[in-house]
Amino acid sequence: MTSWIRFRPPGGASTCGTLRGNEVAEFRGELFAGPQATGRTFELGEVRLESPCVPTKVIALWNNFHALSEKIGKAAPTHPLFLIKPANSVTGPATTIRRPPRYEGKVVYEGELGIVIGKRCSQIGADEARAYIFGYTCVNDVTAGQLIDESPDFAQWTRAKCADTFCCLGPAIATDFDWRAGRVVTTLDGIERQNYPLADMIIPPHEIVAALSADLTLDAGDVIACGTSLGVGAMKDGARVCVHIEGIGELHNRFAAPF
Amino acid sequence: MTSWIRFRPPGGASTCGTLRGNEVAEFRGELFAGPQATGRTFELGEVRLESPCVPTKVIALWNNFHALSEKIGKAAPTHPLFLIKPANSVTGPATTIRRPPRYEGKVVYEGELGIVIGKRCSQIGADEARAYIFGYTCVNDVTAGQLIDESPDFAQWTRAKCADTFCCLGPAIATDFDWRAGRVVTTLDGIERQNYPLADMIIPPHEIVAALSADLTLDAGDVIACGTSLGVGAMKDGARVCVHIEGIGELHNRFAAPF
Repeated sequence: MTSWIRFRPPGGASTCGTLRGNEVAEFRGELFAGPQATGRTFELGEVRLESPCVPTKVIALWNNFHALSEKIGKAAPTHPLFLIKPANSVTGPATTIRRPPRYEGKVVYEGELGIVIGKRCSQIGADEARAYIFGYTCVNDVTAGQLIDESPDFAQWTRAKCADTFCCLGPAIATDFDWRAGRVVTTLDGIERQNYPLADMIIPPHEIVAALSADLTLDAGDVIACGTSLGVGAMKDGARVCVHIEGIGELHNRFAAPF
Repeated sequence: MTSWIRFRPPGGASTCGTLRGNEVAEFRGELFAGPQATGRTFELGEVRLESPCVPTKVIALWNNFHALSEKIGKAAPTHPLFLIKPANSVTGPATTIRRPPRYEGKVVYEGELGIVIGKRCSQIGADEARAYIFGYTCVNDVTAGQLIDESPDFAQWTRAKCADTFCCLGPAIATDFDWRAGRVVTTLDGIERQNYPLADMIIPPHEIVAALSADLTLDAGDVIACGTSLGVGAMKDGARVCVHIEGIGELHNRFAAPF
C-alpha cells in the first residue's frame, strides 16, 4: 500500500509525492501518468498538504449505507443516487471550511470514503472497475443542510453541497486499501460522532464505479464520495472536524475559523 | 457585437477565433485572457466548429420562465434552482447526442440561453454581474427525462442531465447580445417545437450570476443554462435538432445517429 499526497514544499510549487510515516518523498509529473521520484525528501511538518488529487468533478452518493437507510426509512437503492460537487468545492487537509456568506442555517459534516479514479473510464463492468480505481481517500461531504428542502418544488441537493470548501479531501490516497475491513470515524472537537463500518455499504465501490461509468465518463482524479451513515451533525463556528479512516489517515479541517 | 468561436482549422489544433458572415479569423491564446489575431482567415466550411468554450461546469436552471412555471403549476423561484452538468457532458455544434447505452426511455431536447462567464467571480452583486458576463450562447440541455422520477426518494436531476454529449453548446458566443429582445427557437427535424421570448425569464441573467456567485465560485468559461420554456419534447433516434437564437446562431445536433 502506498500513500500518495499532493503538497507544496518549502518555497516550491505543488507536486505529488508519497508519505511514509513522517517522510515525504517528492515526485515529478502527473500522479496518474507515472510520476518519477526526484530523490528529494521532506519532513511532513515542512510541507503544506493539499487535496491529494484535483478532480474535474466529485460525485456524491446519497443513501448508500444500510444503517442510515433504515433510520430514514428509505429503500436501498439499486443504482447510485447522486449529485455533483464541482471542482470549486474541493479543499485539502488543514484548511478552513467557509460558511456561505448569506446562509445562516446548519452546516453539516458527513464523513465518507472517497474512491479516486485513476484512468478515464466509460461503460465498464464491475469486474473491470478495479483497474480504474487508483485508491481511496477520506471525504468530508459538507452540506448546508437547510437548503435542501428550502423549495417545496425542487430538492436543492446541488446547491446545498456545491459551495467553495464544501468538499474536503485527503490527507492521502491509499492504494490497495481494503475497504471491507475499514471504518469511517468522524470527530467534532475531539468527540466521536460517526463510527461506521464500510462493510455496511449498500452498493460497493466496484459496482458504484461500473454503474456511474454507464451514466457518464469518469476522468482520472475524479472522486466518488460513497455516501455517509449514522451520526451526521451540525458544526458550530470554530469547530474542529476530523474524518479518520485507518489505513488512509486523518482529514482535519476547521469550520468558519482559521485552521 | 463579436461572435467568438472555437474551431479546428484544417490539419491544426483547436483555437479560438471570430466569425463574421462565413469568415473565420484565427486567434492565438486563451479566449478569456486577451487572445491575439494571427492574421489567418478561413472559410467557415473549411473548419470544424467545437464548443465555443470549455467550461469547468455548466449550471442548469430549472423553472425559470413564467409560461412554463404556470403550465406546471409551480411557484416562481426567488433564487435559481439548479443542478450541475459536468464537463464530460459538453459537446459542440454538428455533433451526435448519444443515447446512454442502458437507457431506453425518452431523451428530451431543451433549447436554452446560455450565459458564458468571462472572469472568475464570487459574491458579486447584480449591478457588477455585467462585467463578469463574457457573452451568450445557445444550449441544448439534453435530458434523459424518465430518470428524473425513477426513484421515489431522490429526484435524479443530475443523473438525467449529466451524460456525455448531453450539453450541446454553440455555435458561437455573442458579446453584447440583447437578451431582452431575443427568442429561443428549437426545431426538430425542421419543425418548430419551441419559440419563446427571453423576456419571459423569471430571474434575469445578471441576477442569476449574482445569486449563483453567492453559492459557489464561477470560473471563466463556465456556462449557466437559463432554463427552458414551453415545447420541450422527446427526440427519436436519428432526429435533427436545432436551437436557434437570432444574434447568436443555430446550434445543430443529431440524436443517436452520425451528424
